[in-house]
Amino acid sequence: MIKKPILAALAASALAMPAFAQRPAPADPVAKLRDAALTDSVAWDVVEGLTTEIGPRPDGSPQEARARDWAVAKLKSLGFRNVHIEPYQLNTWVRGQESGEVVSPYPQPLRLTALGNSGATPPEGLTLPVVFFPSLDDLRAAPDGSLTGKIAFVSNSMQPTMDGSSYGSQGQARRAGPNIAAKKGASAIVIRSIGTDHGRGPHAGVTMFEPGVTAIPAAALSVADAENLERMVKRGKPVTLHLLLTPQQVGLRDSGNVVAEVPGTDPLAGVILIGGHLDSWDLGTGAIDDGAGVAITTAAAKLLMESGKHKRTIRVVWFGDEETGGFGGAAYAKAHAGEHHALAAESDFGADRVWRFQTNLPDNAKGIADRLAAALDPIGVIRGAPAPGDGTDVEPTIATGVASINLNQSGLRYFDWHHTPEDTLDRIDPEQLRQNVAAWTAMLAVFADAPEDLGPVSIQK
Amino acid sequence: MIKKPILAALAASALAMPAFAQRPAPADPVAKLRDAALTDSVAWDVVEGLTTEIGPRPDGSPQEARARDWAVAKLKSLGFRNVHIEPYQLNTWVRGQESGEVVSPYPQPLRLTALGNSGATPPEGLTLPVVFFPSLDDLRAAPDGSLTGKIAFVSNSMQPTMDGSSYGSQGQARRAGPNIAAKKGASAIVIRSIGTDHGRGPHAGVTMFEPGVTAIPAAALSVADAENLERMVKRGKPVTLHLLLTPQQVGLRDSGNVVAEVPGTDPLAGVILIGGHLDSWDLGTGAIDDGAGVAITTAAAKLLMESGKHKRTIRVVWFGDEETGGFGGAAYAKAHAGEHHALAAESDFGADRVWRFQTNLPDNAKGIADRLAAALDPIGVIRGAPAPGDGTDVEPTIATGVASINLNQSGLRYFDWHHTPEDTLDRIDPEQLRQNVAAWTAMLAVFADAPEDLGPVSIQK
Repeated sequence: MIKKPILAALAASALAMPAFAQRPAPADPVAKLRDAALTDSVAWDVVEGLTTEIGPRPDGSPQEARARDWAVAKLKSLGFRNVHIEPYQLNTWVRGQESGEVVSPYPQPLRLTALGNSGATPPEGLTLPVVFFPSLDDLRAAPDGSLTGKIAFVSNSMQPTMDGSSYGSQGQARRAGPNIAAKKGASAIVIRSIGTDHGRGPHAGVTMFEPGVTAIPAAALSVADAENLERMVKRGKPVTLHLLLTPQQVGLRDSGNVVAEVPGTDPLAGVILIGGHLDSWDLGTGAIDDGAGVAITTAAAKLLMESGKHKRTIRVVWFGDEETGGFGGAAYAKAHAGEHHALAAESDFGADRVWRFQTNLPDNAKGIADRLAAALDPIGVIRGAPAPGDGTDVEPTIATGVASINLNQSGLRYFDWHHTPEDTLDRIDPEQLRQNVAAWTAMLAVFADAPEDLGPVSIQK
Repeated sequence: MIKKPILAALAASALAMPAFAQRPAPADPVAKLRDAALTDSVAWDVVEGLTTEIGPRPDGSPQEARARDWAVAKLKSLGFRNVHIEPYQLNTWVRGQESGEVVSPYPQPLRLTALGNSGATPPEGLTLPVVFFPSLDDLRAAPDGSLTGKIAFVSNSMQPTMDGSSYGSQGQARRAGPNIAAKKGASAIVIRSIGTDHGRGPHAGVTMFEPGVTAIPAAALSVADAENLERMVKRGKPVTLHLLLTPQQVGLRDSGNVVAEVPGTDPLAGVILIGGHLDSWDLGTGAIDDGAGVAITTAAAKLLMESGKHKRTIRVVWFGDEETGGFGGAAYAKAHAGEHHALAAESDFGADRVWRFQTNLPDNAKGIADRLAAALDPIGVIRGAPAPGDGTDVEPTIATGVASINLNQSGLRYFDWHHTPEDTLDRIDPEQLRQNVAAWTAMLAVFADAPEDLGPVSIQK
């Protein structure tokens, strides 16, 4: 609750304060760049182009290759230097046919999608009874061998969290559930999608089987379908499903990271590494995950480029594989091992507003955080407790002792659409996208010319 | 805008008024029944059961037959009398495979669904260039023969309206567009879904070809896909699509109306006909269209039944085919021609709040509307200008001169999900559903015992 004196002050200031867009341009160069970013059109242009001209970009696919070429052309046209692809290979899983239905006692179709690394059913599918587990812990508690000839059904309701932390905990049903079910003898598994919506679009995503565990067919039901199946199970009669999933592991395929730079004036000051990931799940067009991230970081870097020379090189990376194991980030860290990075940060949480920042600067550079807090306050970004940045793409680099920062975006809508057919351009609010660009621009402006040495930080997570 | 004195009065009454649920039970029997309906659980039970145990109910399908049996059992278990099926047959169209993609210049899959009565592509599909029409009028203006060897793409943005009237105007792109395109020589047509959302679920629905016009393949793109295709077209390069649609007309199949009654004490006073429709499109589970309608009207009739004897018979009909041509309503009107109906009304607009009523009572019975207005005011229902009721199921009966009423529901969310995969139980707000039951209960309580004669009304629409 807001206390009354504050409300009164707000009411008074509302009368006195000029409209945000009309305030005079600030003299401070950081503030000036930040406010210029609030009218940015580059980020929208990038994510609109990527989703319209390329669309889904699954790992190791021809579409991903086409997206890399598109990215190179786009980054060159925006004026970046040293634009190139850093290739690597990854083991590739390819979706096949997928369908499912309740056979009895209440026959009706189910909307589902195979999880990444799912095994395949026979070509005619599987028809087997369901064993219901309200949570992953309930599945864990099932006796070994008790699932032989059964399809495990794991429900688990996920609530939205501002910081996305519920994805970490609830997402285990997807990441670990199939492996657990396989070890207990299940013939297949269906989970309630890891999502905060109630729609029919299933949430794709990767699952992992331990070495030696044979991958079983594993699918995510849409949340609405999982809720319907749960209602059926709770009526008490045995429920039988038919599942058809024909994905395949197709071996090594080409992928790559697309790299672009805004060269700095001081090669010894270290590189600022920013970016997002170019790959996407295949059901949507990869707008919020993560067309937005590459768009936001690219737009911010371009604003820095256009504002004159800066001390540190800004390197924008459109990472390849993030979705199926983080091979893009790992390949980057390997290719750039030993290089001096001053900072690493990524944008991979949609396009809603940045609400907080967190950073783990070395002791000698903590003043940067104060200057950053001042620069971000006018656009509604609060300062969080000191903490390292995170994100699959930059974590292998951060793990070498590079300072890092998170510009935390609101997670309250993200998991409604994450990895679903609904991850399309329509989910991006242009105004919130621009606020993101402003936050990243301010961050870059503070760090690019910071006089402090940005050497290694102690590694703690 | 609300005028200040009203605001002041509202503020005063907010302090003085006890919470709604705590007010003493009214002495007026109509008000008493209405308020009892606000705690109803029957409507939820019906729509939850229908969507969970049956799911989609396409016209002429085995699922629709199973739904009729389910309806008979449910209506008997609720205590209704004279529960029976009135069979009829209808020409049946069956969905087949359906897929589509942009072939060039920006290859990516499209989410679409065949429109009811769509023709089929060859088994290998069609690959043809697109001709874009921003509106149906633009399609109408295309020269005859200009679409030979082309796929027409008609966009048209639909805005939500409280009364659903935008469906009447914008829906013509679906209802009439394919016939117009076929007459101009198009090989196929895709339209932007008739919907107010921006999602990936295409909106199904029927289209009609004139006698002598060969049905062409006709599909609705999801709104998000249509917006994406429109962005592609506007880039200026020729756009080629591949479409695969294999629906079939399969001839006459069985359907039927499910009828149940609350017998009245005066056979000469006329029957009150209420209901909704049991059939649904196949992509969702038919929750808002129209499980909710049969649920609401059934729950209200049951409350009347339990409140003692009433003068007029209340007949609840779960109509068969509404979606593909209104064969259920026509079959009912034919089977009951010459029978004295006092009133006809249907619920077929989702489960959001009733906000207005409209009726066309004969001159001698206009006092009923005053009593109804008083009964509905406390649950937020305003009185509209006199007008006949409408709705595909009851219109053939109303057309014989039967008095009618609309209990208008808010249309502001309905076309986000109408005819899409998203028409599931999750879209129904239990509290709004109960408000619907209360409105229908109050309406039935007023009409069932009204002393006025409810004879024929002059027919005007």
